[in-house]
Amino acid sequence: MTGFFFFNQIDMQSNWYTYLFHVQYLGLRYAGWQKQEGVRTIQGTLERTFRHSLGEERFKILGAGRTDAGVSANRAAFELFSPVPIELGTICYQVNQYLPTDIRLLEVREVGKDFNIIHDVAWKEYRYNLAFGEKFHPFAGGYLSYFAGNPDIELMQEGLALLKGMHDFRRFCSVDKITDNYVRTILETSFSRHPQAGLGYIPEQSYTMEFKGKGFLRYQVRIMVGALIDLGLGKLSLAEFEEALSGQGSGAIAIQAPAHGLVLENVVFRNI
Amino acid sequence: MTGFFFFNQIDMQSNWYTYLFHVQYLGLRYAGWQKQEGVRTIQGTLERTFRHSLGEERFKILGAGRTDAGVSANRAAFELFSPVPIELGTICYQVNQYLPTDIRLLEVREVGKDFNIIHDVAWKEYRYNLAFGEKFHPFAGGYLSYFAGNPDIELMQEGLALLKGMHDFRRFCSVDKITDNYVRTILETSFSRHPQAGLGYIPEQSYTMEFKGKGFLRYQVRIMVGALIDLGLGKLSLAEFEEALSGQGSGAIAIQAPAHGLVLENVVFRNI
Repeated sequence: MTGFFFFNQIDMQSNWYTYLFHVQYLGLRYAGWQKQEGVRTIQGTLERTFRHSLGEERFKILGAGRTDAGVSANRAAFELFSPVPIELGTICYQVNQYLPTDIRLLEVREVGKDFNIIHDVAWKEYRYNLAFGEKFHPFAGGYLSYFAGNPDIELMQEGLALLKGMHDFRRFCSVDKITDNYVRTILETSFSRHPQAGLGYIPEQSYTMEFKGKGFLRYQVRIMVGALIDLGLGKLSLAEFEEALSGQGSGAIAIQAPAHGLVLENVVFRNI
Repeated sequence: MTGFFFFNQIDMQSNWYTYLFHVQYLGLRYAGWQKQEGVRTIQGTLERTFRHSLGEERFKILGAGRTDAGVSANRAAFELFSPVPIELGTICYQVNQYLPTDIRLLEVREVGKDFNIIHDVAWKEYRYNLAFGEKFHPFAGGYLSYFAGNPDIELMQEGLALLKGMHDFRRFCSVDKITDNYVRTILETSFSRHPQAGLGYIPEQSYTMEFKGKGFLRYQVRIMVGALIDLGLGKLSLAEFEEALSGQGSGAIAIQAPAHGLVLENVVFRNI
């Protein structure tokens, strides 16, 4: 809610400069995106670093979506509102020098006053990275989840395909007091070998599940993944999975998969 | 000190079983090895998981060395003292299921009563992993440090070679109230391209500095690396570096390099 408050407040300052940044981070040691007192967050770390780099206190940062504690991003987005212009050619390099190694700015552009980082999202892509078999090297532990057992990958792929389209996802999310509309549309899904499987610290038996959509409910991706793993390990039948997808029954169908397997892969905007 | 206290206390319990474990971890989100109230540590996480897996409260864990906050390990060691025997064939697999993905047990063996994990260290190997040039992907940010600039690698190699042998390292450590003996011996050093450079998230321009010795002073490896980087970037001359190595002058010669580039690569014991 704070984000919207800032946005409206700033919207009135018609003389402020507005910039769109893309950023990537390893979420492992952060208590999520959203700034909170007394804990390390992505937004808090970015604001502290921009204050230092800009020598300016009055700017505001508004994210396109708020990742939970432990969740990473490969290409997230935020808007920066500033009373003074910034140097587009050097700002990313300059801020990156002061950001810790687990956060990196990718690019920046100036956007018009009519750009709205919340409403102008065309789609977001989330990936869930996971490995089966032997437990893997801890150096990959920040962006990959491990599951014991030998799941039926084909059955998981079948389940994943069912998620595509418009459904009532009330059994694939955590209860949220703000909404009573659980209908969302998943534009695309895929299940493939991890693109870097076998390279660096990423094990051979690593997979990536991909989910594209305009918006997702709280914990939706992680609960969908949890249900797919239960399906693959025989703890859930395809019939139960399908029934839950119609909104029938009550309570979440599965426990959410661990945060550190989830990556906000991309945020794409329309009208820019 | 607590460690020694436990050790002596247990040493008297001549009927306890003693095991040597090797373990690896990503230190990024941990406040170091040593158990402390209210923060997440490697020892604390291991003890909690063993309690759960063994269904036994009375065991004790003693590490071979205590890594600082943010420091990782590729093959660290600890001794486990237990009043009941453990199942050597399954314990690592079982405990690994409950440990988070950023800590992994590698192997275990039973050791005799005369084995002493502190005194029987033959040598330890530390590696410092770093990259120059473009800031790299945050997913490698937990085990690799980044430095801006274009250092003189040959000069750094020259400086590194000077560290080998027995020296008074008082200007390459943080002042420690417990010791007034700053003489240590470095058995081996090397400077090479990172063995996984260009693979996974590890950038092409990544390097590894290696240090082998029986014991190191507080922050010694990180201050030696900090001084070598200052040397490579022209902030320190080879003459100043050599002079400091004789123990001349006062104060640490450089700021310690960031914790997350440091990895306790291996601990090797004699007599087992």
